[in-house]
Amino acid sequence: MSEAKYDVVAIGNAIVDIIGQCDDAFLEQHDAPKGHMRLVDRDTITALYDAMGPAIEVSGGSAANTIAGIASFGGKTAFIGKVADDDFGRVFTHDIRASGATYETAAVSGGAPTAQSLVLVTPDGERTMNTFLGLSPELNHEEVDAGLIADSGILYLEGYLFDRDEAKQAFRQAAKIAGEAGRKVALSLSDGFCVDRHRDQFLEFIRNDVDILFANESEITALYQTNSMEEAAKQSQADTKLAALTRGAKGSLILADGRAIEVEAEAVSKVVDTTGAGDLFAAGFLYGHSRGLSHETCGRLGGLAASEVISHLGARPRQSLRELAEKKQLIS
Amino acid sequence: MSEAKYDVVAIGNAIVDIIGQCDDAFLEQHDAPKGHMRLVDRDTITALYDAMGPAIEVSGGSAANTIAGIASFGGKTAFIGKVADDDFGRVFTHDIRASGATYETAAVSGGAPTAQSLVLVTPDGERTMNTFLGLSPELNHEEVDAGLIADSGILYLEGYLFDRDEAKQAFRQAAKIAGEAGRKVALSLSDGFCVDRHRDQFLEFIRNDVDILFANESEITALYQTNSMEEAAKQSQADTKLAALTRGAKGSLILADGRAIEVEAEAVSKVVDTTGAGDLFAAGFLYGHSRGLSHETCGRLGGLAASEVISHLGARPRQSLRELAEKKQLIS
Repeated sequence: MSEAKYDVVAIGNAIVDIIGQCDDAFLEQHDAPKGHMRLVDRDTITALYDAMGPAIEVSGGSAANTIAGIASFGGKTAFIGKVADDDFGRVFTHDIRASGATYETAAVSGGAPTAQSLVLVTPDGERTMNTFLGLSPELNHEEVDAGLIADSGILYLEGYLFDRDEAKQAFRQAAKIAGEAGRKVALSLSDGFCVDRHRDQFLEFIRNDVDILFANESEITALYQTNSMEEAAKQSQADTKLAALTRGAKGSLILADGRAIEVEAEAVSKVVDTTGAGDLFAAGFLYGHSRGLSHETCGRLGGLAASEVISHLGARPRQSLRELAEKKQLIS
Repeated sequence: MSEAKYDVVAIGNAIVDIIGQCDDAFLEQHDAPKGHMRLVDRDTITALYDAMGPAIEVSGGSAANTIAGIASFGGKTAFIGKVADDDFGRVFTHDIRASGATYETAAVSGGAPTAQSLVLVTPDGERTMNTFLGLSPELNHEEVDAGLIADSGILYLEGYLFDRDEAKQAFRQAAKIAGEAGRKVALSLSDGFCVDRHRDQFLEFIRNDVDILFANESEITALYQTNSMEEAAKQSQADTKLAALTRGAKGSLILADGRAIEVEAEAVSKVVDTTGAGDLFAAGFLYGHSRGLSHETCGRLGGLAASEVISHLGARPRQSLRELAEKKQLIS
């Protein structure tokens, strides 16, 4: 196995987040399940956008946020995902490249628009996402750069990709390429509802192809259809070599080699917007893992990155995560 | 004169701000004059965007920010300005309407794009703007809704409009309509460099058509070509019935009926981004003025609105200015 050119390559939906504030009543009125991501069609997103208050736009996409986070730590990263040749496509492309990541998937003209997600933040800092995928799921297997995947230490996939068959094929093929090149495959479960939609396929994929699994409490308990976090942790320990389970303010639980390591959360003075918390936890963890750091340090780097991103609107870091981690003496 | 349907109608460039952070060296390297707005062409904005770091997008435009601010106080507002039928045009349209303002200028397909401004924020919170006006200056006099202007207590114009001849004609006509309907005309000088470009036309317009003038120190001293704020204040007192001169952390100076009233600035714990400070000062001032409040209270409402907007990225308020002003017992 040759030296990897990239620490992590990710495949995910290329999304611009449109972030606004609302109260719980607004979510109920518009059937938006609080704390979750739901897929909506063009008419629904247009109606919801018309109804919501003023917003700001920030590049998003779960795996893309993770890639931007790893780049902010100083990791070498690449991203594969599809945008249209429109303003939002240019915004996404600019931001992921400006973060330091390699991004070469060609933009498409004349078809569906770039994916967008209306992110509604309630006063408690919780985010509820309404995503119109546009042309993002049209990513096909020819656009999955085999050389790039074989050249990357870790292939990272977001669970949201399971929502579209075309994309599913593309990332299964990617996992095969990574496996054959002796690289690792990491997966984030993304969302409890998404797990419900594709439970069997997730389980099969995790058992056969995944080396590192990321999930939060609601996702991992949804996967194993249990109310007990303990039971879910036990089952994921049986199914994966390495799992990092996040538990919000309670920190994270790292399951590795039959051991369970509890890592405390990083203190946050005020939670403004939880969007990207899981994505940035994965960023810190994967950066540490790619540097061969201990599981505990990986968990602490994940918690640190998550704490930065939830302290402001938007799911990408605004400060250098490398500098933050150096200050905490987690890396040098 | 009939009762006005709107407190304030504004004409301005309809712009989406692309806000990123940089250091002073980056500004120098790219010939961007710190603290100012410069107009750039499409090639320049593309090159600068490629070079700058990750960004967030927020609706902007000087007069549009003022309108959003007045609406946040609870004022009745309308905006006239031109966008293209593209993602940024839809963002601008959504945000100004969601603020509560009436906005009916038709979007244009197939031509130049919606105006955008790369706003570079340095660590001291100062912003430097690089604006590509796109199709915004194509606003013509047929698009200036005479009924709307005659129906509004105050017509507010941004000085930036002087930068394009087509728009200049449109807003001169608007001032004429307002004057004939017995309404007031307010003008913001916008930028010292903009004043340098059009000094004589500004002076003529101020002396003949303007009832309320807004300017900061660098703009008013540029207008009267003096280094002395005292001298500039004296001259503006001779030229205008009512002038509100802002002085950053030193507060504002209101010149009215031969009197000069000094108003202290609102305390701000951390200046994050000064973009929109002047626009929001004008919002608070005009809201107070439309309600018949004292000049001092108008100045304090202006200072309060400015303090909110400089405490975060972006030039539009994120909190209800009405609630903030009620807490301070400036309005009830």
